[in-house]
Formats: sequence, structure tokens, C-alpha cells
Amino acid sequence: LDGEGIPEWVFAMVWWPVSFMGYMLRLIGRFSKLAFLFSVSAATYYWLYGAIVPPSLSESHPINFLYPLDSKQRKGGVPTNATVDFAFYRQLMVRSGTRGMDWSSSMSPGSSLDIGITLVLPESPANVGVGPFMVKVVVFDKQGNVVGEGSRSMILRHKSSLLQTMSTVFYSIPLVLGFTSEHQAIRGTVVQLISFPKGGLQRATVSISDSRLQVYSASIDISFVLTGFRYYLYHWFVTSMVIGTIVISNLYVSLISWMSRKLF
Amino acid sequence: LDGEGIPEWVFAMVWWPVSFMGYMLRLIGRFSKLAFLFSVSAATYYWLYGAIVPPSLSESHPINFLYPLDSKQRKGGVPTNATVDFAFYRQLMVRSGTRGMDWSSSMSPGSSLDIGITLVLPESPANVGVGPFMVKVVVFDKQGNVVGEGSRSMILRHKSSLLQTMSTVFYSIPLVLGFTSEHQAIRGTVVQLISFPKGGLQRATVSISDSRLQVYSASIDISFVLTGFRYYLYHWFVTSMVIGTIVISNLYVSLISWMSRKLF
Amino acid sequence: LDGEGIPEWVFAMVWWPVSFMGYMLRLIGRFSKLAFLFSVSAATYYWLYGAIVPPSLSESHPINFLYPLDSKQRKGGVPTNATVDFAFYRQLMVRSGTRGMDWSSSMSPGSSLDIGITLVLPESPANVGVGPFMVKVVVFDKQGNVVGEGSRSMILRHKSSLLQTMSTVFYSIPLVLGFTSEHQAIRGTVVQLISFPKGGLQRATVSISDSRLQVYSASIDISFVLTGFRYYLYHWFVTSMVIGTIVISNLYVSLISWMSRKLF
Repeated sequence: LDGEGIPEWVFAMVWWPVSFMGYMLRLIGRFSKLAFLFSVSAATYYWLYGAIVPPSLSESHPINFLYPLDSKQRKGGVPTNATVDFAFYRQLMVRSGTRGMDWSSSMSPGSSLDIGITLVLPESPANVGVGPFMVKVVVFDKQGNVVGEGSRSMILRHKSSLLQTMSTVFYSIPLVLGFTSEHQAIRGTVVQLISFPKGGLQRATVSISDSRLQVYSASIDISFVLTGFRYYLYHWFVTSMVIGTIVISNLYVSLISWMSRKLF
Repeated sequence: LDGEGIPEWVFAMVWWPVSFMGYMLRLIGRFSKLAFLFSVSAATYYWLYGAIVPPSLSESHPINFLYPLDSKQRKGGVPTNATVDFAFYRQLMVRSGTRGMDWSSSMSPGSSLDIGITLVLPESPANVGVGPFMVKVVVFDKQGNVVGEGSRSMILRHKSSLLQTMSTVFYSIPLVLGFTSEHQAIRGTVVQLISFPKGGLQRATVSISDSRLQVYSASIDISFVLTGFRYYLYHWFVTSMVIGTIVISNLYVSLISWMSRKLF
Repeated sequence: LDGEGIPEWVFAMVWWPVSFMGYMLRLIGRFSKLAFLFSVSAATYYWLYGAIVPPSLSESHPINFLYPLDSKQRKGGVPTNATVDFAFYRQLMVRSGTRGMDWSSSMSPGSSLDIGITLVLPESPANVGVGPFMVKVVVFDKQGNVVGEGSRSMILRHKSSLLQTMSTVFYSIPLVLGFTSEHQAIRGTVVQLISFPKGGLQRATVSISDSRLQVYSASIDISFVLTGFRYYLYHWFVTSMVIGTIVISNLYVSLISWMSRKLF
């Protein structure tokens, strides 16, 4: 009487989600204790994961090169320096609600960091003329001790005039409209495996060997190198989650059975 | 008898807004006390919001670089300086009825400001030849103390001659008609997180390291960085408004019940 | 009998303006006392407005730079000066019947002026070579005291050779026929918010830092900055007129009622 005039299949289609929900509920009801156990275990695993693995594996802070004020000195090609105050940027991140690396105790000493530099360089004749240049990074901890130090050479990628012309023609629309410009982003790791100091990094100095180099913008990139247990937790996320949840649920079952034996 | 000759649906359509209004009015009548309470609470919230959050989060004032009068000195590339008297511009804004940042007590000390510079530079051979230059900003408070200081490098965006030709051809109509010119606007934050001094900023000096740089116009941009409570009030406007209105209405109800208990 | 032979609708159409006029006249007759009151009030408001707001908010006078007579000195780039005698130009304006700013008492001291400079510069290689130059303006009152002083940098707008070619080709007809020339008009405010001295401005000296600059013609632009009450009278013209007329009519009514009570 309900389905009078409505074809059977329409009725079935309308009814489908309801019957599916009912099936799921019955399934949950049947396995509810197990499901509850697993949910609690997964939550515990999630909590542990958050405590062990840092919320973000990398941080990037802008750096500002201070060119010599004297134009003759600048043309002479003396080094250009920049200083980064990590404490300041950490404060900025906290204020803006961004979560960066957690420099507190949960990142145990003995962990290690890589420090790299990203330079955005215009493909100008001046930069092409500079050729290879050295980038030097020195990192300091809270007490002012040098924690890590390194230098590496960097160079603008060479483009023949034909390639340059082709690139400019290919990207002509965004270039002319001002959405992009003729520049290259050069990345490189300068210091590797700095052991993480207690209280975090405080300050870094970056210097470029030639002040004739024209830099649009630059940044220092800190990345946390996960080692040992943390490495597997992060890079084998699903596997370690499944194993971890099962292990934790077993622990819970053992704990409950032990407690019930003890109490009753 | 009323709808004689008029189809039923026309009547319904015409009548619809009237019946809807009637429904709304009955609804308002039923919930009038609650609605009144919420209106008063929302008005109170709005008043508090206006007292806590500054009316404008940023201000921009023109700056005027004073080039050396001696042309030989100018060619030599000595620094160029400019001074901005914020008190003067505040007066200008008040006179023209513009509401800028509120420098009075409602912006409590401890808040912070970012200060940036915008330079409009012609794409002239002279400017391209200057290459990177330093911009230095020093900010003073009412007592003449230095509140913030910073410098950063800036540079004209490089354009290859092909791109320059393409740009000029692309924008030829507005360029020839004089609506625009071959220039670039370069922006950059120079000083970050100046803690807001009591009585506001008074004065700033801006200097460019190389007086060979040709500047069409420049401005100093002050932006208020909302932190803590203010940050949430502004960036989570709707959420904080709903919560705030409910909290205030509860406070009103408590106050009224307390007063009525006290009085009668 | 009236409309015999003439269709009804033609008659109605012809008669329409007459009946409309009649309606309007009857309406005016009914409200004539009120209309008379408002007309008188509006006239009073207009008279007050003319007395308070200056007839013209800006004035522009030509200036003439006196180049050094010695060509060696001229090539060396010493400053070029010009003097403007405002009293002289005011006399000129009075003679030609132009109404400029009203320098008499109705513009109360405490009002303020902006002073700018307009330079018409040829796009010659000499001018391009000068680059940025300083313009300095000093303004004197009747007693010879310095009322305002300021300087700013100005520069010819850069045009790439391609753009210059395109412009010359585009405007070739008026250029060849001599209706226009390859020049640019550069404008800029040099002194802001000079407080208006008693008796008006008397004299100004303008100097350009580099006498190699070729100037076709130049002018000094004085603009009156409306503040406070005047600002609203001028920039919210309709609103203030309506409010002003109503207020004045109320004053008239009060006055008349007071007088009639007093007299009869």
C-alpha cells in the first residue's frame, strides 16, 4: 500500500542508505566492545605520536642580506652578511598561531637538524657575471656557542641566450602581467646533522662571498632529521599505526585483566 | 467574493509577503523579550569591539627623499634621507575625516607594529645600474627615544630586454596615453614587531643607501599586529561575536536578577 | 460639445500640462507660507555659505626661473631660483575680473594652505641626465616672515626608447603641426598645511637644485585646505544645505514669534 504506483527500484534506491545504516549499526553493536577498545587504543597511539614526532619537520625563516652602504665597496665584491634571530621568528610564529618546530623538551637532545639556504636570484647580467659564490652558515645556541658551521658553493643555472629567449616567450603572459619574473630559486643544504642543542637554536649568521650578487629574497630552512624510532613512526605511518594500535590494545587488555584479577 | 475573477495563485502570490511579514511579526512578538535581550547584548558587544580593536589595521604615509643638492655628491652615491612626522600626518588625517590607527589609550602599550616601505621606481638604466640598495628605518616615540630600527635590502625586479620590449608593446596604449609609466612598485617590511609606545609613534627617518636611485614616490606603511585577545576578536569575528553576545546576555540576566533580588 | 470631432485622448494629452500646472499651483498656494519661509531660509544659507567658504579653492601663478648668466656655472649644476609676488598676481586677477582666493578677513587665520609646484619639462637628454632634483619653496607673509618652507624631490618620468618612439609616432600629427611638443608636466605638493597668515601670502621663492634642468614653464599652485565646519559645508553640500536651511527657518520662526509677542 505504501509503494502504490512507485516502481520497486525507486523504493529500493530511496531505502538503500537507511538499510545500509541499519546494517552498520548492527555490525557496530555486535563488535562494539572490540571497536571501543580499538578506538581508545588508536586515540592513545595518536596522543603518543603527537608527543614523539614534532608537529612540523621543517621551518623556514626569511633572511635579509645587509649590503655594504658604500657603492664602491659593493662593486668590489666584499661579502654580504645576514643574521637570523630564531627566537624572534619563533615569537612571530606563536603570535600568528602557526605551529613550527617544538623546541621544548619533547624533542630530546641528540636529535639532529639540517640547515639549508634558499636564494631567489634574478637572471640578471650582474648575477651571471658573479659566477659561483660561497654561502657560509654559522649556527649558535642559547649560550652563544657555535653549534654548527658549514659552507657550500652555489651558482645560478646557466641559460643560453636561445633558451632564455624561449623561456621568456613561453612564460610571456604571466611575465608581462607581472605574476612572475625572470628569476631562479637556488636551494642547498649548507650544514648537515647538527645535534639539536638544549633550548633550541638561537641565532644564525649567513654570508654570501660576493656582494655583487643581486638577491630578491632568501630564506634559511631548518629541517628536523628523524632518526631511529621517530623515523619509522613518521615514514612508515600506516604500518606503525596499525602495529602500535594493536600493541596498545593488547596492553590495555592485559592491564584490565590484571586489574580485575587483582580487585575481584 | 474577494478573489472573484482573479485566479487563486495570483492572490496567493500577492498575499505571500504579507502573510510572511505577519508570521515574522508574530514570531518576534513571541520571542520579543529574548530578542530585546540579544539586541542589547549585541550592541554592547559591538561597543566593546570598537573600543578594543583599532578602527584600521594599517596606515600609509607618503615620504619624500631629500637628495643632496650638489649633483657631484648625488652621482657619488651618498645616502638619501627622508623624515616622516607621524604627528603631522595624523593631524592631516583628522582634518580630512579619515580614520587611521587610534593612537589613544584604547590601543594598550604592549601591542606591536610592523613598519614597511613602498618605493615606486622607474625602470631606468640608472636604477638598474644601482643594483641592490639598503633601506634603513628608525622610529622614534614622543620622547625622542628610538623605538625600533631595522634595515633591509631592496632591488628593482630584473627584466630582460626581450621582456621589457614585450611589456612596453603589451601596455603600449595606456603607456602612450600617459595613464601609466614604466615603473615598478617595490614593497618590503623593514622593522617587525615594534612594541607600541605610549602616545604612539612620533617620527621616523628613512634612508636609502644610494642617492643615484631614482624614486617616483615612496610611502611608509605601518600595520598593527593584533595579538592575543584582539587577534581572536578580529580574525574569528563571527565566532567571537556569537560567544561574546551570549556571554554578555548572561551577564545582563545575572545582573538584572541580582538587582531585582536586592531591590524587592 | 467641447471635444466635438476631436478624439478624447488628444484632448486629454493637450490638456495634461495645463491640469498639472494647475495642480502644482494649488499645491503651492496651499503651502505658500511654508514655501516662502524655506526660500528665504535657503537664500540666507546661500549668503552665509558664500561668506564662509572661499569662492575658489585653488590658485595657480606662473613662475620664472632665473638661470645663472654664466654658462660654465650653468653647466656646473648650481641651483636656479624664482620669486613669485602674490600681491602682484592678485592685482592682475582683480584687473582681469577673475576671482581667486579671498585673502580678506572672511578666511579666518588658522585655516591652512597647501603649496605645490607644476613643472613643464622637455623630454630632452639633458633633463634625463639630471635625474632626480630638489625643489624648495619658501613662503613669506606681508611682514616678510617665513610662513612655510619645504622641499621635495621631483624627477622626469622615465620612458624607454621604444616607448618614446611609439609616443612620437602616435602623436606625430599634432607634434609635426606644432600643437604640442615632447614634454611632461610634473606636479607635486611641496609645503603642506601652512597656517593661513593674516593678510594672506605675500611672496614665495622657489629654487631647483640643478640649473642644468630645462624648464618650459612652471607654476606655483596654492590650494586651500578646508577644515572643520568648512569641510562639512563643502564636501557634504546637500546634507549641510538641508540641515542649514531647516535650522535657519526655525530661527526665523522663533524670531518672528518672539517679535510678535514683544510688539503686540
